Amino acid sequence: MSEVNGKRTIELKNKPRIIATSSLVGSKEGKGLYGKYFHKVVEDDKMDKATFEKAEREMLQEVIDMANQKLEENGNAINMLIGGDLLNQNISMSFTAREMHLPLLGVYSACSTMSESLAIGAIMVDGGYMENIACATVSHFSSAERQYRFPLEQGTQRPPVSQWTVTGAGCCVLGKGTNEPKIVRITIGEVVDFGIADANNMGAAMAPAAMTTLMHYFEDTKTSPDDFDLILTGDLGILGSGILRELMADRNFPLGDNYKDCGATIYEGLPNCYQGGSGAGCSASVFSSYIYKMLTTKKIKKMLFVATGALLSTTSTQQGETIPAIAHLIELEA
Amino acid sequence: MSEVNGKRTIELKNKPRIIATSSLVGSKEGKGLYGKYFHKVVEDDKMDKATFEKAEREMLQEVIDMANQKLEENGNAINMLIGGDLLNQNISMSFTAREMHLPLLGVYSACSTMSESLAIGAIMVDGGYMENIACATVSHFSSAERQYRFPLEQGTQRPPVSQWTVTGAGCCVLGKGTNEPKIVRITIGEVVDFGIADANNMGAAMAPAAMTTLMHYFEDTKTSPDDFDLILTGDLGILGSGILRELMADRNFPLGDNYKDCGATIYEGLPNCYQGGSGAGCSASVFSSYIYKMLTTKKIKKMLFVATGALLSTTSTQQGETIPAIAHLIELEA
Repeated sequence: MSEVNGKRTIELKNKPRIIATSSLVGSKEGKGLYGKYFHKVVEDDKMDKATFEKAEREMLQEVIDMANQKLEENGNAINMLIGGDLLNQNISMSFTAREMHLPLLGVYSACSTMSESLAIGAIMVDGGYMENIACATVSHFSSAERQYRFPLEQGTQRPPVSQWTVTGAGCCVLGKGTNEPKIVRITIGEVVDFGIADANNMGAAMAPAAMTTLMHYFEDTKTSPDDFDLILTGDLGILGSGILRELMADRNFPLGDNYKDCGATIYEGLPNCYQGGSGAGCSASVFSSYIYKMLTTKKIKKMLFVATGALLSTTSTQQGETIPAIAHLIELEA
Repeated sequence: MSEVNGKRTIELKNKPRIIATSSLVGSKEGKGLYGKYFHKVVEDDKMDKATFEKAEREMLQEVIDMANQKLEENGNAINMLIGGDLLNQNISMSFTAREMHLPLLGVYSACSTMSESLAIGAIMVDGGYMENIACATVSHFSSAERQYRFPLEQGTQRPPVSQWTVTGAGCCVLGKGTNEPKIVRITIGEVVDFGIADANNMGAAMAPAAMTTLMHYFEDTKTSPDDFDLILTGDLGILGSGILRELMADRNFPLGDNYKDCGATIYEGLPNCYQGGSGAGCSASVFSSYIYKMLTTKKIKKMLFVATGALLSTTSTQQGETIPAIAHLIELEA
């Protein structure tokens, strides 16, 4: 099967802008590298709720409310929601949207949900179909562990290749704006599977997806990694981002010092975090806080945001399947 | 929060067209009202696979392949996939896409996944961002029962309000086309919850979502139910579509003989189907077969397709939550 003009990368002529962002994380994330940049750090990761799932939902609702308040200061408001989460049937987003009476496009691509949401939202704003679209996602360590792995009460030992699901949420509002950071191109990813079957080693499963999307983008646009101040992946972790460096070097597009991974850095300085962070809230919270600040202060002028997602489920793993992964790319300018 | 110009309904100026469709169902669906219109009926609902989940995936892959073959007859091909399914983490769509090396936007809105996919795809084609986008979805009675309700082996008795998850898949390819049926407007739904807590009575939970989206559409466009040859909901079933009639009559927009529901009719004439069919594959297979044929032969000239989705999960039900629902609307012309 072929692509439109042989290309997958979509140009956005009207350059939709990220007019507001908000982020909220748990206390562990608050102690890490980006701690002082998050808009809110909560001490109680149960948010005074009966279950971790209800707490996760509360975090998503708070982060969207925070973004909406920023719009209201300018007499504006969020018109629509795009997003999803890691829980079965996207319940965090669906139940959050229930309280908001706004149109919702529910999406799922695991930890690349933020970049998928930004891609769809950017197209809708660029084409003049809608504005002030909130793209939001969340993840929670405790709800993810018990759904994807083991009950926390079991005290299962973590293998050295594992990552720690970030407790946190991020929200980016897309609109017409004036001089905020803008989205100039997007590349929608394809599903890639290099045969990794270890559900604890998701960085290794996702690195080939990031490589595939980056290679499509560089070929489509005749650019190379050196053309950017920052190439940011979502949650490959320390191991996975090392694999991505090798895969890109093998293809003569080596990644330099301008390459970073949200997951590999979010817990920098903290003990026992193994390969770093993961989860839909990982890249969402880091992008919506520290990275957005670097863009608005022009410390980063041109960057690629490539969040990656591992598309496994417990059912697929139990049925002996390997782990497919996907990565969606967003090119931004300050 | 407000909407763009107070409206939610999006006009598509370039009228993207549904240039090809395909459908595939199980033997039970093949014996129902639309049996002779489905493109393929399979006798073995396990598709010669080890598990029902793998069979479901095979159905989705076959239905997309069938649509792609129709494009290939005109020297064309599918460029991109949009869709999802009912299984946790959308594994049917993710694993199908793995075999296809095409960009994927994974979406989730339960049984309204087909209309959500058509909405996103129509915007992308209308704005000139992409063409030949396959919107596809699938559901399978046996995989859905064991994920959402009880293992089949348990032989649990079905309550009278229950619906039967359709084993089937549908695919619609969106492109520029020439005289195929076109999408003229879309209304993206909001999440609505009228407090239904019985996970067996999803028609009652979804009817208010269909009503909410229809009312937004009629108010935005200054139209009424009489303006259409057909208003088609997805899988409210017999009970749920009766509730929708009451809700619309209460609001002075009564639905007449031009109102039908895919779920309420798909098993017409078959015994023990209670309130009818449900599942993401229900409206997808009926729309992609019989309805598309009625549009291409101009027996239907102007219609609304409003697939509805119940956004519950087993976790939300176990935590005492009621059932939120959503409905996305697609307006079509022959």
